[in-house]
Amino acid sequence: MESNDYQGLQSVIWSGAQLDLLDQRLLPEEIVYLPLVSAQDVWEAIRHLKVRGAPAIGIAAAYGVVLGSRDAGEDAATWLQAARDAAAHLATSRPTAVNLFWALDRMTARAQSLAESGLDLAACKEALLQEAIAIQSEDEATNRLIGEHALTLFQDGMGVLTHCNAGGLATAKYGTALAPFYLAQEQGIKLRVFADETRPVLQGARLTAFELHQAGVDVTLICDNMAGMVMSKGWVDAVIVGTDRVAANGDVANKIGTYSVAVLAKAHNIPFYVACPLSTIDLNTPSGSEIPIEERNAEEITEGFGKRTAPAGVKVYNPAFDVTPHEYVTAIITEKGIIRPPFNVNLKALFDN
Amino acid sequence: MESNDYQGLQSVIWSGAQLDLLDQRLLPEEIVYLPLVSAQDVWEAIRHLKVRGAPAIGIAAAYGVVLGSRDAGEDAATWLQAARDAAAHLATSRPTAVNLFWALDRMTARAQSLAESGLDLAACKEALLQEAIAIQSEDEATNRLIGEHALTLFQDGMGVLTHCNAGGLATAKYGTALAPFYLAQEQGIKLRVFADETRPVLQGARLTAFELHQAGVDVTLICDNMAGMVMSKGWVDAVIVGTDRVAANGDVANKIGTYSVAVLAKAHNIPFYVACPLSTIDLNTPSGSEIPIEERNAEEITEGFGKRTAPAGVKVYNPAFDVTPHEYVTAIITEKGIIRPPFNVNLKALFDN
Repeated sequence: MESNDYQGLQSVIWSGAQLDLLDQRLLPEEIVYLPLVSAQDVWEAIRHLKVRGAPAIGIAAAYGVVLGSRDAGEDAATWLQAARDAAAHLATSRPTAVNLFWALDRMTARAQSLAESGLDLAACKEALLQEAIAIQSEDEATNRLIGEHALTLFQDGMGVLTHCNAGGLATAKYGTALAPFYLAQEQGIKLRVFADETRPVLQGARLTAFELHQAGVDVTLICDNMAGMVMSKGWVDAVIVGTDRVAANGDVANKIGTYSVAVLAKAHNIPFYVACPLSTIDLNTPSGSEIPIEERNAEEITEGFGKRTAPAGVKVYNPAFDVTPHEYVTAIITEKGIIRPPFNVNLKALFDN
Repeated sequence: MESNDYQGLQSVIWSGAQLDLLDQRLLPEEIVYLPLVSAQDVWEAIRHLKVRGAPAIGIAAAYGVVLGSRDAGEDAATWLQAARDAAAHLATSRPTAVNLFWALDRMTARAQSLAESGLDLAACKEALLQEAIAIQSEDEATNRLIGEHALTLFQDGMGVLTHCNAGGLATAKYGTALAPFYLAQEQGIKLRVFADETRPVLQGARLTAFELHQAGVDVTLICDNMAGMVMSKGWVDAVIVGTDRVAANGDVANKIGTYSVAVLAKAHNIPFYVACPLSTIDLNTPSGSEIPIEERNAEEITEGFGKRTAPAGVKVYNPAFDVTPHEYVTAIITEKGIIRPPFNVNLKALFDN
């Protein structure tokens, strides 16, 4: 069984002196780690999708606060201010994934309590680094739990469709939506995965197909517009996706196209599952309509493949995410278990315990 | 009003000595006409998508029969056999679009009646060429009628979504699904068109956005997976698409992704229209399950635009078409008017008159 253990590429590695970040834009053709030494480096990596995936963004941002404050000040107050400034800047990198803000809030709260603790500055800095490391290692443990819970929903021989990449590359390890596939692989349970290529940035083709194929999981790549046909053939028994933010009522923001998949799943009586850690659930956002949806530039669509594929000057609409209303969500799978409707009650209860 | 008249690129031009065929694979970046001088040239152009769109394929194939027989034989019987051989070969170029077989049948029937007429061979050859020219010019007139009927379904200010390219480039002129947009433009009626880019070959981005933008129609390019979100925002009042074959019961084969669009339209209470000439309606095919669906090679998805976007060796499923069951079709718009359910009765009646 040891030989089946999942060993994927790590997207974020703390080297001891810098953040080595896998440039996900270059996958699957090139495996390049970028050395990031400042908060601004991390900001740019997040903004330009070198790192993506809500949990991985949160982890990278946590290290960004470390990098942005490690050389700061003679005293704790100056250092704390530098950490807060770095966090405030990193918060402007992308708007939708709540894990970014969750990780930044956790890091600044930790910095504040350290600054007030009377520890010397070097100890404060080391402890803040340990907080970032903890965020990363907790994410790995969390995802393994998500995978274990999710796998109880699947049986040997099932076909499961996923959209975008909520895999090891999007997290510390295992992924959220892809975690059950890796655990199934470890346990010899055969699942057949359909991966939507996920235009415009092709995270499904470049990342999901890549990491599942590398791990030996049975994966078939399709274009996004083939999901309906594949479902109509009876090849899909379940859909599972990740998410960038779950609102208090269970509405789910995720990569553009997720809503279409959810509507298609409902029309074919296929369960639609969302996998995420508690850090992606935002009880402060009442519903999906309050989730800010990032719009990205036209060139992602018109010349994303290295050559222009649309007429110059044509209007383009390029939202990076959409919102799937909670009515389409069969269950949300967290490290604390499988949450079913009514989500407004059952999500809140997760945080009350 | 003259200045608003639609003048698009012609995809098929008979030069008098050869078929000048617009290479649609190179659009929108390059406008190149290929000189085709043999039936084999036409076969390759159809197979490799240099010409696509069901009516345009039919027109090109009709000229292919002319090219394949014009140098043949000393007598009418030899010439007729050459025409039949050319048609038989051309029929193997692609399987789904019924206009191909319709045009080939019409050309071979005409060749047979000419061969039996006692006309001299040169006159037979000239008359067969005139049949191909008639197929082309009838298509233009047909499409204008389709556009007029379709336009009665739309009102100034509406948003209309289309998938793939059923435009001027797919036909002799005007297109089928795009015809109402050109007529609206001529009449000063403002419509807002959303064009799905239509993976993997991007006919929506490369062709539909190109020809509508060139004609001054208000068109917004989106990725296929954005259609659901755009509908949920209330921006889409109708969907209109072309088709490669309509079965006797009203099931519609069209470019892959059409079925997903139809399901999404139904979920949003948006009418779903299909535009086509009678030559696309195949009463000999009882339902969509009898329509052969072409599967194309994996490279269209994994390296379609000059760079590899998926891991080497990954499994790919690449159907070129899907079938939309007639329950999802609000109406089929032909040159004889707008056909509504029950399609099994009303389609047959079109041919009885």
